[in-house]
Amino acid sequence: MHSIAIAGMGRMGGNMARRLLAKGIKPVVWNRDTAKLPRLEAAGAVTAKTLTELVLKMKAPRAVWMMLPSGEPTETLFLGLLSLLEKGDVIIDGANGNWNDAVRRAKKASETGIDFLDAGVSGGIWGLENGYCIMTGGPKPVFEKAEPFIKALCQDGGYMNCGGPGAGHFAKMVHNGIEYAMMEAYGEGFDLLHASPFGEIDMAGLASVWNRGSVIRSWLLELAQNAFDKDPKLENLSGIVPDSGEGRWAVEEAVRLGVPLPAISTSLFKRFRSQMKDNFGDRLSAALRREFGGHGVEERMKDEG
Amino acid sequence: MHSIAIAGMGRMGGNMARRLLAKGIKPVVWNRDTAKLPRLEAAGAVTAKTLTELVLKMKAPRAVWMMLPSGEPTETLFLGLLSLLEKGDVIIDGANGNWNDAVRRAKKASETGIDFLDAGVSGGIWGLENGYCIMTGGPKPVFEKAEPFIKALCQDGGYMNCGGPGAGHFAKMVHNGIEYAMMEAYGEGFDLLHASPFGEIDMAGLASVWNRGSVIRSWLLELAQNAFDKDPKLENLSGIVPDSGEGRWAVEEAVRLGVPLPAISTSLFKRFRSQMKDNFGDRLSAALRREFGGHGVEERMKDEG
Repeated sequence: MHSIAIAGMGRMGGNMARRLLAKGIKPVVWNRDTAKLPRLEAAGAVTAKTLTELVLKMKAPRAVWMMLPSGEPTETLFLGLLSLLEKGDVIIDGANGNWNDAVRRAKKASETGIDFLDAGVSGGIWGLENGYCIMTGGPKPVFEKAEPFIKALCQDGGYMNCGGPGAGHFAKMVHNGIEYAMMEAYGEGFDLLHASPFGEIDMAGLASVWNRGSVIRSWLLELAQNAFDKDPKLENLSGIVPDSGEGRWAVEEAVRLGVPLPAISTSLFKRFRSQMKDNFGDRLSAALRREFGGHGVEERMKDEG
Repeated sequence: MHSIAIAGMGRMGGNMARRLLAKGIKPVVWNRDTAKLPRLEAAGAVTAKTLTELVLKMKAPRAVWMMLPSGEPTETLFLGLLSLLEKGDVIIDGANGNWNDAVRRAKKASETGIDFLDAGVSGGIWGLENGYCIMTGGPKPVFEKAEPFIKALCQDGGYMNCGGPGAGHFAKMVHNGIEYAMMEAYGEGFDLLHASPFGEIDMAGLASVWNRGSVIRSWLLELAQNAFDKDPKLENLSGIVPDSGEGRWAVEEAVRLGVPLPAISTSLFKRFRSQMKDNFGDRLSAALRREFGGHGVEERMKDEG
């Protein structure tokens, strides 16, 4: 491939462009909100205010990495690129998208001779410095065309073509499902400690100790230490845990395939509960206790709405 | 402390003795089965065939690290040591024991002026080379007396006194609860991948890629890679996952304290199920489907007993 563009300059896309620049690769960058472009131009990137400009500023064969939110924004961008790119160019779908969309897009792209790779990108805001971990899906020759750019984005050994179309996003979905349950595992463990007679323990210290030789050492546990260092009892946070789609897709896929995912699904469901102030099902349980046993219930505060 | 003994030369105790030797500390070692002693003597340890001999071969103040299975073997050893040691000596309870036993033993030891530390030891068979991770519980001055030995056993920064009596075993219990759910998280993720259209993926390769920059990188994932390297589809293993007590205690403690541990408890319960060929509850569910809907059931094989 002669040149690479990154379309979408959010936190992930912007950092990926900077990572490429640090590796001596000059990407073309585009963003819906053009206000972000001058800073990237100052950093050395070639900027494009429209997709047409993006395509014109690249030399064929082109690799265009889509890094917008999944769903509508990515679909619109995909259709736009499809109408502008030419045979032999590659569209790389780097959003946290559903793998079925990737399969559909790969098929649609192939009808016009444009190549397609789906790419799951992990590493968060640390990827700029440490390198990302990238799982791709698509035909091997297409992967190999894009490989130099993928390699530049990643840690040494931190990428893999996981199979045909959809495999990259499927692997990222599985990765995120595992991530949900791992986060829940640490959350539950520290919760138990916090509620125990030993709750005054230095949790940052314990996380640090556990990361030095214990079986549960991990990068997430390093991040937990950072969080405890900043706020030892996490008193400045509320325990609302958003979910971004990947966890839901993992559980949907497990249901479809008949695979038992009790820990991942319960972690997803606990996130749902964390997003609610109150829960209809819990209110029914409270009501039933009152009905059959005359047990006391907490009257709902009027201002809870 | 002048000298240390390790009582119990199982896989953990034996490796701990070897780790001390490698750090220039000559432990006295004792084991119920004396057949293991000559090899440790050859490695440089002082061996004792009886507890009396162990105590006589040490200089006061002594630190005796109990490294037998928890429950009866540790209790018997504890009572034996209590009758032989003297004021100012320290008994360190290194078994994977229930933290309530540690609290009880600390109290009993203190009645005779003998000090007591409970110590949770993590690191498995890798601890010999990499250093262990050790969580202790007990009075600070007692911890400090034993610290040089603990330090020699551990990775740099890999130990901590977690609080008063019981805190070390409580922290180890929490650690193992987290470990159960983390193992389940990886198990479920790879299970989903294995059942998917992308099930032919190189799982060792994926584990390796995930360990290079992804959010779910961890030591357990490195071990998963080792396992896949040896047996890519794990075809030479059965999926029976024993449990050793710590997971049960974590869930019991959560029930006592009213802390929700859905992922850890479900991981424990999935282990229970994995230990069964068949399950009475599942047979009842199958029976009920037949009763209300005339759904077919699998007749039980006679030889399943």
